[in-house]
Amino acid sequence: MRLSRYFLPILREVPKEAEIVSHRLMLRAGMIRQESAGIYAWLPFGLRVLNKVCNIIREEQNRSGAIEMLMPTIQSADLWRESGRYDDYGKEMLRIKDRHEREMLFGPTNEEMITEIVRAYVKSYKALPLNLYHIQWKFRDEVRPRFGVYRSREFLMKDAYSFDLDAAGARHSYNKMFVAYLRTFARMGLKAIPMVADTGPIGGNLSHEFIILASTGESEVFCHGDYLEMAPPSADVNFDDAAGLQSVFDRWTELYAATSEKHDEAAFAAIPEASRMAARGIEVGHIFYFGTKYSEPFGAKVLGADGAEHTIHMGSYGIGPSRLVAAMIEASHDDNGIIWPDAVAPFQVGILNLKAGDSTTGAACEKLYAELTAAGYDVLYDDTEERAGAKFATADLIGLPWQILVGPKGLADGKVELKRRVDGSRELIAPGDILERLKA
Amino acid sequence: MRLSRYFLPILREVPKEAEIVSHRLMLRAGMIRQESAGIYAWLPFGLRVLNKVCNIIREEQNRSGAIEMLMPTIQSADLWRESGRYDDYGKEMLRIKDRHEREMLFGPTNEEMITEIVRAYVKSYKALPLNLYHIQWKFRDEVRPRFGVYRSREFLMKDAYSFDLDAAGARHSYNKMFVAYLRTFARMGLKAIPMVADTGPIGGNLSHEFIILASTGESEVFCHGDYLEMAPPSADVNFDDAAGLQSVFDRWTELYAATSEKHDEAAFAAIPEASRMAARGIEVGHIFYFGTKYSEPFGAKVLGADGAEHTIHMGSYGIGPSRLVAAMIEASHDDNGIIWPDAVAPFQVGILNLKAGDSTTGAACEKLYAELTAAGYDVLYDDTEERAGAKFATADLIGLPWQILVGPKGLADGKVELKRRVDGSRELIAPGDILERLKA
Repeated sequence: MRLSRYFLPILREVPKEAEIVSHRLMLRAGMIRQESAGIYAWLPFGLRVLNKVCNIIREEQNRSGAIEMLMPTIQSADLWRESGRYDDYGKEMLRIKDRHEREMLFGPTNEEMITEIVRAYVKSYKALPLNLYHIQWKFRDEVRPRFGVYRSREFLMKDAYSFDLDAAGARHSYNKMFVAYLRTFARMGLKAIPMVADTGPIGGNLSHEFIILASTGESEVFCHGDYLEMAPPSADVNFDDAAGLQSVFDRWTELYAATSEKHDEAAFAAIPEASRMAARGIEVGHIFYFGTKYSEPFGAKVLGADGAEHTIHMGSYGIGPSRLVAAMIEASHDDNGIIWPDAVAPFQVGILNLKAGDSTTGAACEKLYAELTAAGYDVLYDDTEERAGAKFATADLIGLPWQILVGPKGLADGKVELKRRVDGSRELIAPGDILERLKA
Repeated sequence: MRLSRYFLPILREVPKEAEIVSHRLMLRAGMIRQESAGIYAWLPFGLRVLNKVCNIIREEQNRSGAIEMLMPTIQSADLWRESGRYDDYGKEMLRIKDRHEREMLFGPTNEEMITEIVRAYVKSYKALPLNLYHIQWKFRDEVRPRFGVYRSREFLMKDAYSFDLDAAGARHSYNKMFVAYLRTFARMGLKAIPMVADTGPIGGNLSHEFIILASTGESEVFCHGDYLEMAPPSADVNFDDAAGLQSVFDRWTELYAATSEKHDEAAFAAIPEASRMAARGIEVGHIFYFGTKYSEPFGAKVLGADGAEHTIHMGSYGIGPSRLVAAMIEASHDDNGIIWPDAVAPFQVGILNLKAGDSTTGAACEKLYAELTAAGYDVLYDDTEERAGAKFATADLIGLPWQILVGPKGLADGKVELKRRVDGSRELIAPGDILERLKA
C-alpha cells in the first residue's frame, strides 16, 4: 500500500479524552474513531489488525474442529425469556422495540440463540460432539464506557459453543478450546496464563480466564513465574486424543495462578520466593463449562445410543478481538508508539523514502516495494512528501515491525538501512539482500 | 471437511413459509435459519458462500483503489439530524434508546457517518481522491419481511463512499466503481447489466442499478440482447486512466437497458426485433453520484490547490452480499437444488463414498480427500452412513459443482465417476487423474 493513497489520519497531539495508553495510541495511529460514547469506527489501519487477530482465532478454532457460522446481532426478547436471563441482564442489555412493538435486543452473547438452533436440528448423539462459533458484533450498554475499544459498548466477540452427550464429552470439548486458546494467544506473541475464574452471569461449574501480563492491567494477578517459560502446544496436537488434551490442561493448571478474586495467600506463599509473580493482568479470553444450564430450560436433548433422551452438555468460549487489539498494545508499546508482534502487524514492513522527489531513492523504493509485495509481504510504502523525521515518527508510532530506510547517502554505497521496531536496532544492508534477511 | 463432523442440517421437506425458490433452497440446504421475522442466522454452509461473495467484492474494491474500513452498526440520531434524514427515514429505521435515553439507531446506510469521518480528517485536496468502504450488517425494519435473506431486515451490505475535489474527479470515481462492479458480478458467474436508475432516498444526479436476469426477478426489465455477450473489463484495467474507464462506461451504457420505471417504449422499439429482450431482473448493485448532497450540510470541505475551500463531491456504491447469495440461487438452480457458480461454491468438490463402511471405497475416498485438500480445493467429503441415493440428492441439493462418486464397482475397474452439477454429465476417470481434470 502506498501511503499517499491510503487513509491513515495520524494525530500528532495526544488526545485528552483517552485515559489509557492503548486508547491514546489507537487514536494517534489512526486506527479508530469514536462515533458515539463507547462506539467506534475501525479506520483502515485498525481494521487490518482486527482482521489479522480474527484470522488467527479462526484458524485455531477450525484446527480444533469448531465450525464457523454467523448469528445475527438482533435477537428476540422471547428467546431470553426461555432461559430466564431477559430480566437478569438489566440495563447493560440494549433493548429495542421494532415497528410492530415487538421486544428485541442487540445480542450481548448467544447462549440462548445457539441452544435454540441446536435444539431445532440435532436429534441424535451421532451429531455430537459439535462446536459452533461465530465472530460477530455485540453490544453491552455500559453505564460509563471508556478506555476506547478496550471496554466499548459495541464490541466484536468470537464466541464458541460446544455440545456433548455427557459431562466427559463436554470436558474433552472444554480442553479442546483450552488448547486452542493457548495456541491462539501464543501465535499473537502473547504470554497468556490460564487462571481459574468465577463463572459470573454465564453460570456453570468450571471456568478459566486467560490473562496476559501488562503493567496497565485492570486486575491484580498472582502466579508462578514458570508460566512465562512454557511453550504452547504444537500445531499438530491431536484434538481427538482426549487423554492427551487432558495432560496439556493438567500441565498448564498445576502451577499456581489466580486473579485477586480467587487468590489464596497460603498457596501463593508455598511457591519458592524467586518464582512468585504478583503483577497486573488483562483478561483476553474466558471459557466456561456449564453443563445443562441452557439445554435444560430449552429442552435441547438428543437420543443416545442407549435409546434414551439425554440433555445436552454445553460450554461457551469467548475471545474479544476488538478488546484484544487494545490489550496487545497495552502489553507492547514504548514512548514512541505501538510495537506490533509480527503476526498481527497491519503491515509487516514499511519502506520510507527519506528524500521525497529524489529519483534515485524513489526508484529504489519502488523496486523494493514491488519485490516485497510479490513475495507476499504486507508493505506500507511511505511515498509522501513528509520530511524524514516525520516519517520515522509515523513508522514508530504505528509500530511497523521492519522499517526500510531508503536515503541518498546509503544508496550511494549501495545500501539501505533496515530497522527493527522492537529494539530500534539498525543494520546497513544491500536492497537485494532484504528479502533473505526478512525470512531469516 | 468431513460431512460426519460438519453441521449441515438438510431439510427433506419443502418449508411451507418460503415463497420463493432461493428461500426454499437455502432452508433446505441448511444455509440459513430464521431467528425472528426477517432476521437470519447463517449456518456454516451458508456462511461459506457469503464469505466467498464478500471476498470477491473485497478483491475488486481493493483493485479499484477503494480502502476497507469498518463502521459500527449503532449510530447516533444526531448524525442523521445533520443531514435531515432522521425524520425522512420513517419506520424502516430501527430506532433505539440507550440506558441514558440517548436516541440511537441501527444504521441502514452510512452516508452521514462517513461524511462526518472524512470531514474530521481530510483537510486538503492532496488527500483526494478517496474511496472508503466497509462490509457491515445493516437493518431496515421492513413492514412485511419475506423471501428469506433476499429481503431481510438485518442484511449485510458493502457500501463504498467516494470523495473528490470536483465533479470531474467524482465522475472518475464513479466509473471506477462501475468497472469494479462489472468485474465483481462477472467473477461470480453473473451477467449483470447496468441500467439507469432513480436515485431514491440516497439522492443525487446519476445512478445505475446492476441487474441480473432471472425468471423469478422482482422487476420487469428491457434491454438489448447484446449485453449477454459482452465480456467484462480485464483484471489489468488501469483504474488511474480516466479516459479509459469512461470508454468502458460508454460501451456498457450505449445499448438500451432500462427497468420498467425508466422504460422508454420508443427507444426499445428502435432495437432490431431479434435483439429486444424483455425479461425479469433482480437488482444486485446500485451506485450513486450525489455531488454535495451530504458534504454541504456537513461542511465537508478541503482546501484546493487554488487556496480556496471546496465542498467535497461524493458518491456511494452498494452491493448486498446476503441478498446476492439469494439472487444467485434465483438465477441458477434446477429441480434438484442449487447450481453454484464455481467461484462462490461453498465447496468446489464433493466426494461421495457410495458404500459406507467398505474399506476399499473408504480408502479411495480418504486418498482423494487428502490430495484435493492439499492441492487447495475446498472439499466436502460425504463419509456418513447414508445410502447412496440420499448422498446423490444432498450433493445436488447443496449444489456442489464437481462430485466424485466412489463406489466398489467402479473401483474394481480402477475408476470413479466425476459428475458435473451444472449439466449432470458424468465421466469415468481414474482417481489419479482427477486433479488434472479439475484444473482443465
